[in-house]
Amino acid sequence: MEDKYNYKMIVSYDGSSYNGWQRQGNTKATIQGTLEERLQQILQKPVEIHGSGRTDAGVHAYGQVANFYLIEPIEETKILEQLNKNLPEDIRIHLLDLVTSAFHSRLSAVSKEYLYFVDTKECPHVFTRKYKLHVPEKLDLGQMKEAASYLIGSHDFRSFTSDKRMEKSCIRTIQDIEIILDEKAEEGFSIRVHGDGFLYNMVRIMVGTLLEVGGGKIDVIEMEEILKSKNRECAGKTAPAHGLFLKAVHY
Amino acid sequence: MEDKYNYKMIVSYDGSSYNGWQRQGNTKATIQGTLEERLQQILQKPVEIHGSGRTDAGVHAYGQVANFYLIEPIEETKILEQLNKNLPEDIRIHLLDLVTSAFHSRLSAVSKEYLYFVDTKECPHVFTRKYKLHVPEKLDLGQMKEAASYLIGSHDFRSFTSDKRMEKSCIRTIQDIEIILDEKAEEGFSIRVHGDGFLYNMVRIMVGTLLEVGGGKIDVIEMEEILKSKNRECAGKTAPAHGLFLKAVHY
Repeated sequence: MEDKYNYKMIVSYDGSSYNGWQRQGNTKATIQGTLEERLQQILQKPVEIHGSGRTDAGVHAYGQVANFYLIEPIEETKILEQLNKNLPEDIRIHLLDLVTSAFHSRLSAVSKEYLYFVDTKECPHVFTRKYKLHVPEKLDLGQMKEAASYLIGSHDFRSFTSDKRMEKSCIRTIQDIEIILDEKAEEGFSIRVHGDGFLYNMVRIMVGTLLEVGGGKIDVIEMEEILKSKNRECAGKTAPAHGLFLKAVHY
Repeated sequence: MEDKYNYKMIVSYDGSSYNGWQRQGNTKATIQGTLEERLQQILQKPVEIHGSGRTDAGVHAYGQVANFYLIEPIEETKILEQLNKNLPEDIRIHLLDLVTSAFHSRLSAVSKEYLYFVDTKECPHVFTRKYKLHVPEKLDLGQMKEAASYLIGSHDFRSFTSDKRMEKSCIRTIQDIEIILDEKAEEGFSIRVHGDGFLYNMVRIMVGTLLEVGGGKIDVIEMEEILKSKNRECAGKTAPAHGLFLKAVHY
């Protein structure tokens, strides 16, 4: 059986109510599982959706990319409309396009961009409480920027993954880490991380470590040691999921 | 019994889960009821909180103002901290201050500002779905601005209230109505309404009417007739609660 038609989709979701991207049997709601279920209802046949990568429980996405194969072509505009009508309001499809058979959301991905949002006001903003980490303690952003510069480039990021059994290479390349002040600088900032690939929990541990540098718990000069140690225990805490957004996947 | 100490508070809340500001016995969660309950737990005595005005079920606030009277003084900073610890995360107190006995959140208010948010993208943004009305149909903002100009000034707004039994004067003064494009103009806009007082549902009916003008269902020249008619049936639909925010109360 040949699957001739390859469809790419761009998906945004509020991860608050989901147990992450990856389907997990029938017990917990996941983004992949919900998408497959609704697409199956519409197409009246089972479909497997391949994501560019997993996102953890509670992590959000502006631009997750996924693809799926079909034997028969579909009317993209019509199916896109039906999907958005049938999906819960915390998942939205922004694009559904026929692509060449060579395209694979995960294997073809060249790099990914993540954003992590921090609310630094004394009293957290009620309207962003599900999308920003609240850190009212004073943070030294200059120190955080300096610490981030140690993470840019190609490194063995074994200290920055929760996957203790990771047997493959942990070398990844981080193109850029940027700390962007909010328009009203006193309200907070975001950390943009752009890299060719990420280990399990890597962005959240990088952010957690940078926040500990900002708060004075880790010194900037320790950054090199943390990388060299290849020991998860040396890095900072894993920052909570709800501040993290998969911004875009680049091909 | 003399209540010597008068405390003013500024409150922000995500109204999504509440049945509006006003306490309603024990059946439904309201903002006023929740505040009174938590304050009573902390102070170990019943307290009545006076808001600057009611907000409908589902309406949000950046800066609702309230006050309450006490016989004994409290340590504002400590009580503010305890309140924010005890309140659910969708209600936050931004200020708690001792004020003169002459101050009353409702009676001393000079004017109020409301904001109504509209998401005009074809596919609604998942992260603002609870705070913006989604209107993907093309709207003529120029016509809306012209229609808004008819509402500015002192008018009898009887056509713009759902309160059919309103026996008092419906004359109110609207200082300004502004249509503000989002930074990315293609994503949406907000409508800011500033006035000395508002009737029940008035902002939502004004917004609903302006949206019908923008969509071509009501002609700009009908605006004068709608006001003159003093008949609710002549105005547009009541816009949904979830796009509306009480921005600030001015004294």
